[in-house]
Amino acid sequence: MTFDFVARLDALRRLMDAHSVDALLASVGADLPYFTGYEAMPLERLTMLVVTKEGPPVLLVPELEAPRVAHLPDGFELRPWGETEDPVGIAARLLDGLGSVVAGDQTWATFVLALQQLLPEARFGIASPLTRQLRMRKDPEEADALRLAAHATDRVAARLREQRFSGRSEAELSRLVAAMTVEEGHQVATFSIVASGPNGASPHHEASDRVIEDGDAVVVDFGGKLDGYCSDTTRTFHVGEPAPEYRAIFTVLEEAQAAAVEAVRPGVAAQDIDRTARKVIEGAGYGKYFIHRTGHGIGLEAHEHPYLVEGNDLQLESGMTFSIEPGIYLPGRFGMRVEDIVAVTDTGVERLNRSDHSLLVVD
Amino acid sequence: MTFDFVARLDALRRLMDAHSVDALLASVGADLPYFTGYEAMPLERLTMLVVTKEGPPVLLVPELEAPRVAHLPDGFELRPWGETEDPVGIAARLLDGLGSVVAGDQTWATFVLALQQLLPEARFGIASPLTRQLRMRKDPEEADALRLAAHATDRVAARLREQRFSGRSEAELSRLVAAMTVEEGHQVATFSIVASGPNGASPHHEASDRVIEDGDAVVVDFGGKLDGYCSDTTRTFHVGEPAPEYRAIFTVLEEAQAAAVEAVRPGVAAQDIDRTARKVIEGAGYGKYFIHRTGHGIGLEAHEHPYLVEGNDLQLESGMTFSIEPGIYLPGRFGMRVEDIVAVTDTGVERLNRSDHSLLVVD
Repeated sequence: MTFDFVARLDALRRLMDAHSVDALLASVGADLPYFTGYEAMPLERLTMLVVTKEGPPVLLVPELEAPRVAHLPDGFELRPWGETEDPVGIAARLLDGLGSVVAGDQTWATFVLALQQLLPEARFGIASPLTRQLRMRKDPEEADALRLAAHATDRVAARLREQRFSGRSEAELSRLVAAMTVEEGHQVATFSIVASGPNGASPHHEASDRVIEDGDAVVVDFGGKLDGYCSDTTRTFHVGEPAPEYRAIFTVLEEAQAAAVEAVRPGVAAQDIDRTARKVIEGAGYGKYFIHRTGHGIGLEAHEHPYLVEGNDLQLESGMTFSIEPGIYLPGRFGMRVEDIVAVTDTGVERLNRSDHSLLVVD
Repeated sequence: MTFDFVARLDALRRLMDAHSVDALLASVGADLPYFTGYEAMPLERLTMLVVTKEGPPVLLVPELEAPRVAHLPDGFELRPWGETEDPVGIAARLLDGLGSVVAGDQTWATFVLALQQLLPEARFGIASPLTRQLRMRKDPEEADALRLAAHATDRVAARLREQRFSGRSEAELSRLVAAMTVEEGHQVATFSIVASGPNGASPHHEASDRVIEDGDAVVVDFGGKLDGYCSDTTRTFHVGEPAPEYRAIFTVLEEAQAAAVEAVRPGVAAQDIDRTARKVIEGAGYGKYFIHRTGHGIGLEAHEHPYLVEGNDLQLESGMTFSIEPGIYLPGRFGMRVEDIVAVTDTGVERLNRSDHSLLVVD
């Protein structure tokens, strides 16, 4: 997978000009790999790309990690710093005299606050209002990468249907899902939620020692990174035939998810996708059990802009990619969620996940 | 493993008093689990503990994650926030009128900068000058947890000696190391560096597709988390008998590592441990190839205070735990590193890693 880092940097500088931003700092988080192909180690030694309006962007990197950045794109300058140097001081000198500096949203407080101390005249803001204008619209290479990652999770979902669930602990099944996520092509499995029975009512439940039994609904939400891009898919399984009540509520969920997917096209507001899903679930009387937004953007980060949430009137555009994942959670009883990644096309929507997302009955 | 969160909070408030700090904010990073046993999900939805001088500390948590925090320690107050609420605004109201606010070092810039906007009168600083005074000295329960994690990596190291290295790619061996790290008791393997032949000269090398061959030195640096506490161990292997030059340099490295371990006792400055290791390596003429500090603290975080680095005159105290890991790296040729975790005792040092750290010859 090759990306046009020079074009991205040019686009960034045009945005910086338009918004009167003098410098952008990219450290941990996805801005740095978006502009350079390199991801900072999330450690106390500072890695930071400093982009000013002119001259080559400078990548500060711990000297011992410099060999990892051997293939920095042309036009970038590498500045390794030694163990007894002060990297924040080096960054501050590069920013000397500048007025408006934006830092990647996930930059550690320790570095931003230290820079503020050294540059009392500078105004610090966050980078995402700029960078999301680029990163939200995926170029064809990025869409390909997300498609590959989605198809890998589809293969995991298909294999899970052949597994015996009952008698296994959530933790055991979670480890299996993580292993399959890697076997199917991800470099790393980043999460594998397995939430069975009443635990299914906790959307971000961690897999526990609870042993799955006959009659349980099991929400499995998992993903990883493949060539830097994220996957994120949820399927709901049921051990044995579900009771009519569960199946009836699941039908509501399926209708909500399908309606939201069908509503996706350029020009629609992000919050309208949320409203579309919510309206179906509210109409069936389960609105108060749908306790989260309908979806989130996905790309280099598992969660990124755009967010499909009430209050976000951003208009969808071709190339945007996000999850559509309504859920219904009855505290103390059970939960259910269906999640697919979709892409906005020129005329409508493409589902990147293609595996069966109906209620999957297992043993 | 049970920890005395109430005692930790009392100690924190005494430090806040002594340093005239009005509030502490703990979000992503290890301060939050240190004070509550709960680790924030590193996502865009804010999780934040707000500790002021009086009244119960308040944990802001996304509503959909509230079930994960069911067992918050007594004396804490849970404040779940819904998807359309503004969590930064809620935090700002809790901090209204306060003067000095410190935030965990890894708090995302997006939240700290937004709080600064809402609280223009407050002075923001980082939390580690306070929290490290508590976290650096492990209590007996923490030392036990670190011992368990270290012993788990020792078992992995012992198993690795039985493996065939030649003919396998670094990536394959890395996956095996990660799998063993979990098999031996860690909940998660967080990294598994396998750096063979010339790649060994890059201390933070990522495992590549390079196939290991006869005559290679292979640096394996790996670790994970066990009950929240980190492990981190490096062993150097050699495929077949090493050349006399390699063995001679490795002997220097062993002497440096042993001298540094033996120098550990209460009252010695952190930088003196670094100097001790460096002096041995410089004395043998390899000083310029030892391109990183001698070690880092370890606990809830893989890298934390104290850092064994020139310029750090902190005096070691009983209960501190850190790595001792000198390395020698000849660019384009090979590398070597030996890393053990040690604890400062009342009278000297305890090695938490006990597995053989000599040059390990494999097939």
